[in-house]
Amino acid sequence: MAIRIGIFGYGNLGRGVELAVQKAPDMELAAVFTRRDPRSLRLANPQTPAVAASELPTWRERIDVLVLCGGSATDLPEQTPALAREFTVVDSFDTHASIPEHFDAVDRAAREGGRLGIISVGWDPGLFSLARAYAQAILPEGSTYTFWGRGVSQGHSDAIRRIEGVEDARQYTVPVETALEAVRRGEHPTLSPRQKHTRECYVVAKEGADRARIEREIVTMPHYFDEYDTTVHFISRQEMAEQHAALPHGGTVLHSANTGVRDEHSHIIEYRLTLDSNPEFTSSVLVAYARAAHRLHREGAVGCRTVLDIPPAYLAAESGDALRRQLL
Amino acid sequence: MAIRIGIFGYGNLGRGVELAVQKAPDMELAAVFTRRDPRSLRLANPQTPAVAASELPTWRERIDVLVLCGGSATDLPEQTPALAREFTVVDSFDTHASIPEHFDAVDRAAREGGRLGIISVGWDPGLFSLARAYAQAILPEGSTYTFWGRGVSQGHSDAIRRIEGVEDARQYTVPVETALEAVRRGEHPTLSPRQKHTRECYVVAKEGADRARIEREIVTMPHYFDEYDTTVHFISRQEMAEQHAALPHGGTVLHSANTGVRDEHSHIIEYRLTLDSNPEFTSSVLVAYARAAHRLHREGAVGCRTVLDIPPAYLAAESGDALRRQLL
Repeated sequence: MAIRIGIFGYGNLGRGVELAVQKAPDMELAAVFTRRDPRSLRLANPQTPAVAASELPTWRERIDVLVLCGGSATDLPEQTPALAREFTVVDSFDTHASIPEHFDAVDRAAREGGRLGIISVGWDPGLFSLARAYAQAILPEGSTYTFWGRGVSQGHSDAIRRIEGVEDARQYTVPVETALEAVRRGEHPTLSPRQKHTRECYVVAKEGADRARIEREIVTMPHYFDEYDTTVHFISRQEMAEQHAALPHGGTVLHSANTGVRDEHSHIIEYRLTLDSNPEFTSSVLVAYARAAHRLHREGAVGCRTVLDIPPAYLAAESGDALRRQLL
Repeated sequence: MAIRIGIFGYGNLGRGVELAVQKAPDMELAAVFTRRDPRSLRLANPQTPAVAASELPTWRERIDVLVLCGGSATDLPEQTPALAREFTVVDSFDTHASIPEHFDAVDRAAREGGRLGIISVGWDPGLFSLARAYAQAILPEGSTYTFWGRGVSQGHSDAIRRIEGVEDARQYTVPVETALEAVRRGEHPTLSPRQKHTRECYVVAKEGADRARIEREIVTMPHYFDEYDTTVHFISRQEMAEQHAALPHGGTVLHSANTGVRDEHSHIIEYRLTLDSNPEFTSSVLVAYARAAHRLHREGAVGCRTVLDIPPAYLAAESGDALRRQLL
């Protein structure tokens, strides 16, 4: 019987989950839940029920895993614990510093409800966390580096949009290739934020806005830009629509360590993602972990998990025997 | 209490395990077992007991995990099932086609003895299997490519050494960079063996041997060389010792797939290893999985496992809470 998936929240991520479920041989999309008017959604498959979020409780027996597609700032800290009491859930909570707290809240709720939740699923946190975990467990005395980009940072784009006089903005995080190459050569460099990434900003200014002031406010913005070399390009609304509509991203995790009687042998482990669509890729990761959540819960597992706790074979639709034949 | 590791077999791999255990904060090396005269071993730490393999049965209560460092051709198919009855074991069995059979034999033996075995641990099979598993589970409709090298293939070097008139040989497997780049660009090429790798052979010929015949026998050798562009270089014994003593290896797993309403977005997942010492790196992977084997067995798990079955957090010495704080 197919795994019945529910989607909660229909933005970029929810649309990506809808597409990823279509590619999964063992899943079907049961319904999409929204806090907006369900009639306003344009689903890829118009036969899929679009349902008001308030009706979720009546769907408990018709959903195996609910994939939560809200934002990490305000949606997920509240939604994941609340829904983990009633459903097996997966989310992409990505506020790194708050993950332990979110884990505890979801763990408590899921145990109370006898359910399972997997949190912080995606690529960072997510696949990049796995790359760091495997590398550091295997070569514990090494140096680990994470480079992001070239790609659109939604958080930094939003920060620019909040500046007075800005109509729209897109911020690209760009890794410094010379730094990346030094790590790849096994040089174990110590790198400041400025030495690892630059920031490129494309800004549509409102008519009559003071561009010099906008640029100054961007490059001096604490935490977001002041520690980086930042370039600001003012562009037209049309150029924004034509050249910057996509949401590419990616990055590289590198771990560099030595072994040998005199530590004379250098080893480099590199994990790299190059993604045309950040939300569609993140959604694909969510769907694979939805499969794992369903299996684990069927086996009787309850509480909160992260990608670090999940055996890789649980992500795949194939049997263990088939995986051993094809992958080992 | 530290995890007590035993090493069975003291070649390149056994020596690497000895070094890797020294870097593990939660392990100690209990003993090294050998089928040779134990007094002939020169251990990195001379205080470690070197013990005859025949005495293994008396060490059952003093070893938590036995790391099997024999070869895949004749040692492990016999040793791993035999020892999995008495010990929690980890091996690096790497004859890909025979893994299902080896799995079944170890599974049966380990269940009979109430023990746990993890087989085929290393980087291929091993970490590369994981890279393929994660990538294919997340983007199931893509193309997966494995490139090996530049590095020394022991199997191909041995095949050359068996040719009459050859005193010593070293074979490097070299990935074809243009093919690798085509995959990285998301072109999903169909690649023959010849288009993926070339083979470079360094050969010391015996005095008076017919070099033209040796070269012909190498480049036409079925399976090993006939499907590849192979170059043969005759060198002196001294050059072999000075330039080709190391055992570097590595490679790249690439998975390329598209998402989107019209599959318009391309994604590339790349996992790459660059290793100065193939045996020392493989040993480091074995030691991390020895930790996982110990934990799983303490929790009551019995039977055979592969890397696909092990939650990543089980490889690390740190607690789940610490890992969530540091890695997610």
